[in-house]
Amino acid sequence: MRARDRELTAMSATALAELIAKGTVTAVEATKAHLDRIDECDGEIGAWEHLDREFALRQAAMLDKHRASGAAIGPLHGVPVGIKDIIDVEGLPCEHGTPLDAGRRPAKDAHLVSRLRQSGAVILGKTVTTELAVFAPNRTTNPHDATRTPGGSSQGSAAAVAAHMAPLSVGTQTHGSVIRPASYCGVVGFKPSYGLISRAGVLTQSPTLDTIGGFSRTIEDVALLTDAMCGFDEDDTAMRLVAAPQLRATATSRPPLRPVLAFVRTPVWDQAEADVHQGFEELVAELGDCIEEVELPSPFQRAVELQRVIQMAEIARHYGPYYDRGREQLSPTMQGLIEEGRRVLAVDHMLARDWIKILYAGLEQVFERFDAIVTPAAVGEAPVGLESTGSPVFSTLWTYCGVPALTIPLLSGSHGMPIGVQLVGARGRDGRLLRTGRWLVEHLNQSAGRAVA
Amino acid sequence: MRARDRELTAMSATALAELIAKGTVTAVEATKAHLDRIDECDGEIGAWEHLDREFALRQAAMLDKHRASGAAIGPLHGVPVGIKDIIDVEGLPCEHGTPLDAGRRPAKDAHLVSRLRQSGAVILGKTVTTELAVFAPNRTTNPHDATRTPGGSSQGSAAAVAAHMAPLSVGTQTHGSVIRPASYCGVVGFKPSYGLISRAGVLTQSPTLDTIGGFSRTIEDVALLTDAMCGFDEDDTAMRLVAAPQLRATATSRPPLRPVLAFVRTPVWDQAEADVHQGFEELVAELGDCIEEVELPSPFQRAVELQRVIQMAEIARHYGPYYDRGREQLSPTMQGLIEEGRRVLAVDHMLARDWIKILYAGLEQVFERFDAIVTPAAVGEAPVGLESTGSPVFSTLWTYCGVPALTIPLLSGSHGMPIGVQLVGARGRDGRLLRTGRWLVEHLNQSAGRAVA
Repeated sequence: MRARDRELTAMSATALAELIAKGTVTAVEATKAHLDRIDECDGEIGAWEHLDREFALRQAAMLDKHRASGAAIGPLHGVPVGIKDIIDVEGLPCEHGTPLDAGRRPAKDAHLVSRLRQSGAVILGKTVTTELAVFAPNRTTNPHDATRTPGGSSQGSAAAVAAHMAPLSVGTQTHGSVIRPASYCGVVGFKPSYGLISRAGVLTQSPTLDTIGGFSRTIEDVALLTDAMCGFDEDDTAMRLVAAPQLRATATSRPPLRPVLAFVRTPVWDQAEADVHQGFEELVAELGDCIEEVELPSPFQRAVELQRVIQMAEIARHYGPYYDRGREQLSPTMQGLIEEGRRVLAVDHMLARDWIKILYAGLEQVFERFDAIVTPAAVGEAPVGLESTGSPVFSTLWTYCGVPALTIPLLSGSHGMPIGVQLVGARGRDGRLLRTGRWLVEHLNQSAGRAVA
Repeated sequence: MRARDRELTAMSATALAELIAKGTVTAVEATKAHLDRIDECDGEIGAWEHLDREFALRQAAMLDKHRASGAAIGPLHGVPVGIKDIIDVEGLPCEHGTPLDAGRRPAKDAHLVSRLRQSGAVILGKTVTTELAVFAPNRTTNPHDATRTPGGSSQGSAAAVAAHMAPLSVGTQTHGSVIRPASYCGVVGFKPSYGLISRAGVLTQSPTLDTIGGFSRTIEDVALLTDAMCGFDEDDTAMRLVAAPQLRATATSRPPLRPVLAFVRTPVWDQAEADVHQGFEELVAELGDCIEEVELPSPFQRAVELQRVIQMAEIARHYGPYYDRGREQLSPTMQGLIEEGRRVLAVDHMLARDWIKILYAGLEQVFERFDAIVTPAAVGEAPVGLESTGSPVFSTLWTYCGVPALTIPLLSGSHGMPIGVQLVGARGRDGRLLRTGRWLVEHLNQSAGRAVA
């Protein structure tokens, strides 16, 4: 690759969009640079499921023509974006990570994809997902160490951004499928509040939990991406008709007061590895009086069990038809999950759903005093081996409660692999959470001269 | 009772509100007249569960004072309203028709009750409900024949309006609890679109089905009542943040074109009695080219089974705690329903919920061509005996699909008891349905000189 192209693929989406808007770089140049980077490194990483150079370059050429005509351009004009292969894109296959959907070609963009196109994004291609966005791994490797998992289920999206194959990518989280791979791959991952982004045109796994999220290398970038995906859609009953947040504007503003953070170990702290324990000890020490430890009361211990009841029952409902038409083509794990889900009683499922409100009321009390909760993004570094995508347990509670969660690659483990610090905010306060995240990065940079996102 | 008081209790809520607004009648006079009527006839009918003359007269006196001060008054100023005893009213007990809630006194009005108070209504008292608003009858008798059931579960509300003990009353419908008692008691009953009125402060039986409804003696009155109860409440997740409908304005306007009606027998036609078959034959003949028979396709046969899965599972979820703390104080029927509901699988419950959308899509096609569906409100006249409240089966499909349903006392059976004609409209088109209902009454009056609502 030429040095110039290497620069284009290394820069943030925000910087790239500015150069394209100014006319310094064309959308075609930006797209080509990323396609070349994919050619260079995706053989080993395997982040892309469906890639069609012409499909991407055609969009870029149209966007250049549009800009040349003097027409107004969107905030993502010419910026390449990767889309997880459970999200429909017109013109590309969408196979959901299962041979049971081989050859599936959606006729229509998912709502969020059409929003991205309206913002001027170039839909670069489809990224690898685990089987039906659950546990069974696919072929993607960790860009920092090919012997390690990139995490899952949004494994291609996380790896693509980490390896500079795209500045932005879209994933989904039903348990820990954005935060965990972002932590393992050393990028920023953001799972917004439940209901912020429409899921129309996205594979349904668990309507109570499924959330669209994004990957990038800076917090400002993920705000830019999320803004572009928002937009009311009455087909997604989780959405409320409220004004779209201005996440980027809020994220890049200065906090009116110095943020106060709550360090929460969570009931699963013992599952974290020594690297995480030590990293957080140092982080909390460094943050001094900006952070205070808060212990969640005992009912929060139920979150793991409650989230599982919901996810399994809803997997059985939505993936049961796959089981019935081709059980043997599903992984043994998936078969077991569907069988488990089919045994869940309606009363237990409803109770687990009703408890979301109860636990969230507990979190709200924390957010009355604190700007954000600081907690691990994963149990440790990305594990060695591709047979597992690692544990999502540090995401369970936050996905269950529908709160926005952001991971920032602030720590590293004893093998030099990245470890994310997860920030969690109040539901609907996504912009404030991103602003607190940016403040944290700056604060740590100033106090210690770290090189961070 | 004095003739003047008898007049006040016989008139419509609309007429009474006008007289009070003009100053011809005071709120205290109107309230006293209704309390006297209750004294006169409720010994036999038993429509009221909690009645406190002072509670009602205090409100009326305050309203008269308010009006005398020259302040603006609401559309229901001084009009007495009965409230089903599963809806919280501050200052009165709310015992849900079960000894397990004996002595329960809510601290706060239900959302809809506070809306009624804001409209100037006098909360007259609490009306009798069946056990937990399900099947097991309570003591109310049919005002037209004390040996017959008034229907259920909103039995007191229907009987009170039929017997002129209140011009308006509020009930709820999870299956057929507004439409059936209205049909049996010969009054107008209206179950609006699912999600139109907040259920906060109302006993939860089945969140997927529970709907607030109203009783009156004219269609305009029920529009007035429903308008007063509307108002967005973010605590009820079935509600959408849309402008409140102006039901009375729409209901009293002239249809821009002559309405076209669809006569639908439904898959349960065979369960209707000869009175109903004959009454509808005559009605359809009389309506000539204003009505056309439409047959619902075979998937609609599943509604009865699907509605039952939802109602039983959700009864088990919400009434399970009653079972656990005092099973022997529940009727054997209720114990059986809870036990049945506890066996429902989550996948079947979710499937039954998801099918609402599928069947509603079928109905939408009917509403593209027709203003309203015309169908029986009940299987026949109110049955003799108080041990059953009759069959709700002619409400099952409409409650399941969340569509607005209106019953008008247009027919009578071979024993001289009233039989309702049910009109059903598209979801969210409540005003149009009421307008079509008024048109139908006028049209029949003109063509045959009937005496109708």
